[in-house]
Amino acid sequence: MAATSWNGRCRWRRGASTGAITTPASRSRSDPSQQGQDAMIDRRSLLTALGAATVTLGLPGRSLAKPLVPGKAPPRVVVLGAGIAGLVAARELERSGASVTVLEARSRVGGRVWTVRGGDRFTDTDGNTQTVGFSPGLYQNAGAARLPSHHEGVLGLIRELGVPIEPLVNASRSAYLSDEHGTLRLREASYDLRGHLSALLEQALRKGTFDVDLDTPTRQALAKFLTAYGDLGDDGLFHGTARAGLLSPPGATPRDLQRAVAPRSLDDILAHPALPFILFDDDILMQTTMVAPRGGMDAFPKALAASLRHPVVREAQVTAIRRAGDGVRIEWRDAAGRAQATLADRAVVTLPLPILAAIPSDFTAAVSAAISGVRLADSVKVAFESTPFWEADQIYGGLSFVGGETGVIWYPSDRFQAPRQVLLAAYTATPAGAHAFAARPVAEQIALSRAAVEKLHPGHGKDLVNPVVINWRKQPFSLGPWLEWGRDGNDPAMLDRLNQGDGPFVFAGSHLSAYSGHWQEGAVLSARRAVGLLTNPVSQAS
Amino acid sequence: MAATSWNGRCRWRRGASTGAITTPASRSRSDPSQQGQDAMIDRRSLLTALGAATVTLGLPGRSLAKPLVPGKAPPRVVVLGAGIAGLVAARELERSGASVTVLEARSRVGGRVWTVRGGDRFTDTDGNTQTVGFSPGLYQNAGAARLPSHHEGVLGLIRELGVPIEPLVNASRSAYLSDEHGTLRLREASYDLRGHLSALLEQALRKGTFDVDLDTPTRQALAKFLTAYGDLGDDGLFHGTARAGLLSPPGATPRDLQRAVAPRSLDDILAHPALPFILFDDDILMQTTMVAPRGGMDAFPKALAASLRHPVVREAQVTAIRRAGDGVRIEWRDAAGRAQATLADRAVVTLPLPILAAIPSDFTAAVSAAISGVRLADSVKVAFESTPFWEADQIYGGLSFVGGETGVIWYPSDRFQAPRQVLLAAYTATPAGAHAFAARPVAEQIALSRAAVEKLHPGHGKDLVNPVVINWRKQPFSLGPWLEWGRDGNDPAMLDRLNQGDGPFVFAGSHLSAYSGHWQEGAVLSARRAVGLLTNPVSQAS
Repeated sequence: MAATSWNGRCRWRRGASTGAITTPASRSRSDPSQQGQDAMIDRRSLLTALGAATVTLGLPGRSLAKPLVPGKAPPRVVVLGAGIAGLVAARELERSGASVTVLEARSRVGGRVWTVRGGDRFTDTDGNTQTVGFSPGLYQNAGAARLPSHHEGVLGLIRELGVPIEPLVNASRSAYLSDEHGTLRLREASYDLRGHLSALLEQALRKGTFDVDLDTPTRQALAKFLTAYGDLGDDGLFHGTARAGLLSPPGATPRDLQRAVAPRSLDDILAHPALPFILFDDDILMQTTMVAPRGGMDAFPKALAASLRHPVVREAQVTAIRRAGDGVRIEWRDAAGRAQATLADRAVVTLPLPILAAIPSDFTAAVSAAISGVRLADSVKVAFESTPFWEADQIYGGLSFVGGETGVIWYPSDRFQAPRQVLLAAYTATPAGAHAFAARPVAEQIALSRAAVEKLHPGHGKDLVNPVVINWRKQPFSLGPWLEWGRDGNDPAMLDRLNQGDGPFVFAGSHLSAYSGHWQEGAVLSARRAVGLLTNPVSQAS
Repeated sequence: MAATSWNGRCRWRRGASTGAITTPASRSRSDPSQQGQDAMIDRRSLLTALGAATVTLGLPGRSLAKPLVPGKAPPRVVVLGAGIAGLVAARELERSGASVTVLEARSRVGGRVWTVRGGDRFTDTDGNTQTVGFSPGLYQNAGAARLPSHHEGVLGLIRELGVPIEPLVNASRSAYLSDEHGTLRLREASYDLRGHLSALLEQALRKGTFDVDLDTPTRQALAKFLTAYGDLGDDGLFHGTARAGLLSPPGATPRDLQRAVAPRSLDDILAHPALPFILFDDDILMQTTMVAPRGGMDAFPKALAASLRHPVVREAQVTAIRRAGDGVRIEWRDAAGRAQATLADRAVVTLPLPILAAIPSDFTAAVSAAISGVRLADSVKVAFESTPFWEADQIYGGLSFVGGETGVIWYPSDRFQAPRQVLLAAYTATPAGAHAFAARPVAEQIALSRAAVEKLHPGHGKDLVNPVVINWRKQPFSLGPWLEWGRDGNDPAMLDRLNQGDGPFVFAGSHLSAYSGHWQEGAVLSARRAVGLLTNPVSQAS
């Protein structure tokens, strides 16, 4: 599936082909027969027996967190960070009866679930300040921007909280593949290719290539289906298909029949460097249907925060993370710059690892090493307000893949035909492109993004106004978007160590999940697991 | 493309394979070199020269309509029918300076663009009355329900009129193929099939099947791409793919990797009678992105009607269509049952042909024969209000293909996660299923639709309440949904004759377009052509 990993979001795979994260341990975990055996063992005895060895070896899945001890007074838990993981952890801890304090360094909740609107003002770690110039009603999801229909953790919460959602158009067949090799519609690349491949298979069937592999009924059924699959002619050859687009659409009378665009040759299609991107929305995480909260992704964290009994403490910058007896003492600076301290029985730590690495703490040496050993990736989004000139080109939502450092052009699907919309002109997410692009000055990023749009949509670069550039490595309190497995020295063993907890501390966040810091679903699952370590350690530990 | 014609909507095709509508005339019309030659001829001279022959032979594309003669007084035009064709014709005629009267038999505009809501009451031609029981805010588009992003006629008007539109989710990979052969997710059928076919092609490449057909670089490029295309293993074989679905999704820690569902065998997939429906959204008319007006398709005809200078005359039933000098005299009965007559210079006739056939008229014998020689198809929609139980099955919008008489289950995409939604439980559109289903009593149609939902979504048949059944052959003033070319004796020559006009009468409607009565785009194009016959005959006649 490497070809679909245009943004590194789909690295998981059965078997050993992504060796960096598929280990014997993970394979045995995903083997149902193995799980059945485990279930027959008294889990508490097992944990007790393994205890000492676990501390030494840091076996994956063994908890080193100290669970909360049920008592008369409600346990006190402090949650560091009000991103999705922190908010979900706080919500579930409150529901379990705990008294929860959430400390958030920013003046807003949501972390990387961040929606920018006109008037918003932010400063990056280089000291560059941007004020968003969007017209009223317009927004850009600076971070998380889409939800698959199978992310039941997030969608379940969104339903519970009553956050209105709408379709997110993640693929338009009218959008383009475009790079140095040329420009073609996604529907041309997809359906002309399929036509050629179907015709080749049909030919192989006729030549008897599969006579020893497929029985006669299968060969016959396949031959019959290939005609439809590839839209082949009665001669079994591919002569083009209306699926690839219309040169002239059907017209005002029964005589005005449609004509298909001329088919691209197989060579031409295969030579296109952007061809793998026709597989983008085949990825299980990118398939139709995708959804998003109406009016901006931040509706989700805002609703989560509003559902808490104790409001999130904002502009609270953690300055030290200490042990205090069996519990924790969190030192922080409030909005007015005053030193504060919060005592609690336990802490759920969801801060991004580069942030955490800079805060003095009483973590064990192994945990501190794990925290400082993980490096985040680069990703930049560049958005502009614009007239929706792409709609005149029959594009409503979806992505064009334009190569180079700017990567994609992502068309909005939240306000079709509105006179002003927000176009994501660049979204750098592949390691190669993102590092170089992220290193450029803001003005240069804006100019390159505009040029990429101008190249694909000639004459419209000038329609782009009110740019906003979000460089995730330069966002204070984030310092990066996600992890790249097998790059930057990132080793799953470090995350295993963090996922075991550390005495009164448990860690959570999508960066600690199988989602590598992508996808809110990872944050939800990680948060629930962390809460489980505190409230129900036996069921979570194996 | 026959396999994608599940509802007869996609019968057009290059070349001769759908002989019934592809004639030498249409082929030569669609030949650009031929059009180039035509352009070099003075069109007016050509028309004059061909005039007599045209009247006799009824050549396709020759106008027998009498154009309006520019004069001092604004010409008067009466438009029969306030469906999309009638409304667009009226709008364009008003813009050209004509004084337009639109007569509509129903109390609403829109024709087959009809949205039903709670409290709506209607009676079919059998005398059965239904009152729609939907909760407030819910609706079902009883007729037209989706717009492709390339239907620029409709989308242009919608933009001009400021009708808000939203994405229409026409395909969800989580939806199902389900019939007597079994049930599988669309993503399983699509991606397991592609995996198997890619592996076969890879094998054929290795066996040298294409050594004489493809040069070495092409074979190498193809082999490389097939691995990504089919998500093949490093051994070139197909072992399943996460694209087909997840048995276990990625989890809370980096060790909780996803596992794909077990792949279906090629035999199993090919044997599924519903397999061609995986191609449904490959059709150019069904491809992502599709859109619909927010809150119901009738927003479009309502906005068209509101844009007219003279309001549509509703509940005006035409009783006779007469010539009067060079013009027309339309006799009709008003809402109070009083006889009325409207004199005009010309008439644009958009009434459905079975309705028109029953109205006394002064049409020529050839035109009358053409009108009575066309027969419409059957189509039934059965909708219910329900809790959105399908969302718990990860389905948001899209269609399941369930075979049998009920055809499809179409999930709503206009109010995801709302506690009450409208499910289209049956939409019969294939000739085979629709005729039988349409002949059943309403109660039986409801019971069968509920049973089809129960079969695919066990336990949820009981969740379906407030049914509404729209049998288009039994809707007064429609008497059918669309035409089936090559069936029911429908011959394009009859529509050619109508499209030539008849003295002071011109005809319009999607039934006269290349869309065979499907798609509002056909109505828009036909209306514009009809207006052109009246106002600018030369440019339209060739």
